[in-house]
Amino acid sequence: MRLAVIPGDGIGPEVIAEALKVLGEVVPAAEITRYDLGAARWHATGELLPESVLGELRQHDAILLGAVGDPSVPSGILERGLLLRLRFELDHHVNLRPARLYPGVRSPLADPPEIDMVVVREGTEGPYAGNGGLLRKDTPHEIATEVSLNTSFGVERVVRDAFARAANRQRRHLTLVHKTNVLTHAGSLWSRVVEEVSLQHPDVTVAYQHVDAATIHMVTDPGRYDVIVTDNLFGDILTDLAAAVTGGIGLAASGNMDVTRRNPSMFEPVHGSAPDIAGQGIADPTAAVLSVALLLDHLGEHESARRIEASVAFDLATRDHQSPGATYAIGDRLAALVSSNVRTG
Amino acid sequence: MRLAVIPGDGIGPEVIAEALKVLGEVVPAAEITRYDLGAARWHATGELLPESVLGELRQHDAILLGAVGDPSVPSGILERGLLLRLRFELDHHVNLRPARLYPGVRSPLADPPEIDMVVVREGTEGPYAGNGGLLRKDTPHEIATEVSLNTSFGVERVVRDAFARAANRQRRHLTLVHKTNVLTHAGSLWSRVVEEVSLQHPDVTVAYQHVDAATIHMVTDPGRYDVIVTDNLFGDILTDLAAAVTGGIGLAASGNMDVTRRNPSMFEPVHGSAPDIAGQGIADPTAAVLSVALLLDHLGEHESARRIEASVAFDLATRDHQSPGATYAIGDRLAALVSSNVRTG
Ligand SMILES: CC(C)[C@H](C(=O)O)[C@@H](O)C(=O)O
Ligand SMILES: CC(C)[C@H](C(=O)O)[C@@H](O)C(=O)O
Repeated sequence: MRLAVIPGDGIGPEVIAEALKVLGEVVPAAEITRYDLGAARWHATGELLPESVLGELRQHDAILLGAVGDPSVPSGILERGLLLRLRFELDHHVNLRPARLYPGVRSPLADPPEIDMVVVREGTEGPYAGNGGLLRKDTPHEIATEVSLNTSFGVERVVRDAFARAANRQRRHLTLVHKTNVLTHAGSLWSRVVEEVSLQHPDVTVAYQHVDAATIHMVTDPGRYDVIVTDNLFGDILTDLAAAVTGGIGLAASGNMDVTRRNPSMFEPVHGSAPDIAGQGIADPTAAVLSVALLLDHLGEHESARRIEASVAFDLATRDHQSPGATYAIGDRLAALVSSNVRTG
Repeated sequence: MRLAVIPGDGIGPEVIAEALKVLGEVVPAAEITRYDLGAARWHATGELLPESVLGELRQHDAILLGAVGDPSVPSGILERGLLLRLRFELDHHVNLRPARLYPGVRSPLADPPEIDMVVVREGTEGPYAGNGGLLRKDTPHEIATEVSLNTSFGVERVVRDAFARAANRQRRHLTLVHKTNVLTHAGSLWSRVVEEVSLQHPDVTVAYQHVDAATIHMVTDPGRYDVIVTDNLFGDILTDLAAAVTGGIGLAASGNMDVTRRNPSMFEPVHGSAPDIAGQGIADPTAAVLSVALLLDHLGEHESARRIEASVAFDLATRDHQSPGATYAIGDRLAALVSSNVRTG
């Protein structure tokens, strides 16, 4: 297993260290190459993602990324030039974001139901296409545009993936989230594709919700969701909210996947670089560890992935949530749990 | 006071009846003209908003709207052809949406703080501009676009309005919500305008949040918000979420305002037509009643607006939230409270 690791900015390197500790317990022979990309490199060299590095990344089985973003870098530079560039260059069309309320974890909701959903967020088009511009900048007649691009090809592959996932789950329920009553063109394409693909999945029940209504149900009735399929921007928004109601982005893992396997997929915690707590050794590495489980699942190492998930579930059920321990201590605990499962399992 | 009333679809007519009952207590001389627009008219005549009706609407001081939308009409027809058309034709650039957690109202949050915010949602541009299309429809090469249009003119007038509102509130805090790290062109315009206008409001503190992060804080720390200013789509999403955490869209009022007063502003509950409970007489008319208060405020009838708000606050603090009563009963109660305030105030 050849893995590229991009620790990145802020708490990225801190949580990645623990994620690799846990990975070492299940795949000790993993070959790991680190790539130093992010704010520091940009400041030092002006480079974001050199072609040569991109070429090397492509040679790996998967990529593990910590976080990208720093307040010292103008907004958008690292996000568009590095993180989104990776997602687009490597054709990460399925942005997979599970949200589960683990036993023992406190939700901000008063009366949380069982929550266990997977959001399949489109990852390579929509309003994220980077298609837009400024006209007459800094004049009273300035115009700024952002074009959401949606293709039959791009929507269909994601919808198919979402249906396949739904068909493999217990509840077999899929919700399309969009804003078809306002974004009528993109909404029409998404709706038609979902309708067409659903004909091949009579076992999967299908629902539709407008994105605004979905945010309401995410706090009043999140148990209703099984698989959600949605566009890049709505997926960005909904997955942060889903993470919040299931105990916070400190626990949310994600996979940026090329499900055709032509390019390496990239796994990352959803939390970002969190510059406010960086360098203090207090970041929770759990989301990074769960991202390793998604990575292993993608590479077919399902048994190892289950062991990591079970260890996280055990730790969350038993940890003192007021003082869960330092970053390294949580990593040590999870590594020990994973390793003890080896012996007992 | 000349008011145009559009009861509309679903529970619209039911809640409007109660809103007018309450209005009658404070402005008995209001001259009211009803306009029959919505699903029924579209089915009967194919008309959505005839030019002649639009011309008549313009002759009024304000418009009170119940709700628009019905499952029997394809998605987008009534929304784009009637509701959004009204907002755009009448230049309703400030879409004002207060969200307050009233004493006695149960939030879905476990530990809700005091919540009292106002969202100033841009209402006439952004992704709602209706600028987009389909190419090669129903082929494997289909492309659907949606263009977000943002102008210096359009953004600045809304940002100015938001700052003015913030300056008049106790906490004098304004949060810009956008996604500047991805939608870099529109984000750049919005950020620059906020920065420029803030120079004229040194008394107002300014914060920025990405829309995804804002949804997290809306459930983990909603007390932080005072005034939020944001674009049309983010405002749509955030205000439903804000309504949810403050007890549901059954209580959320809104104003679609042309703050230049060249066109009549339009006031409506946020809840929509709710076809699932229409015709049963069980819809809560409180949001429609609070929309009347916003309408009166806009027309300078501040005293009457405060009386209605106080009556709603009293009713919410004392009502049995398990069985708040039928639509007409809540309306009767609120009308009685408003009228008794007349005598005692
Ligand atoms: C950092 C940003 C570009 C990114 C996104 O918008 O996708 C982040 O919010 C995420 O969800 O991974
Ligand atoms: C019905 C729909 C067009 C409308 C909107 O998106 O603005 C509604 O959601 C709202 O918030 O008033």
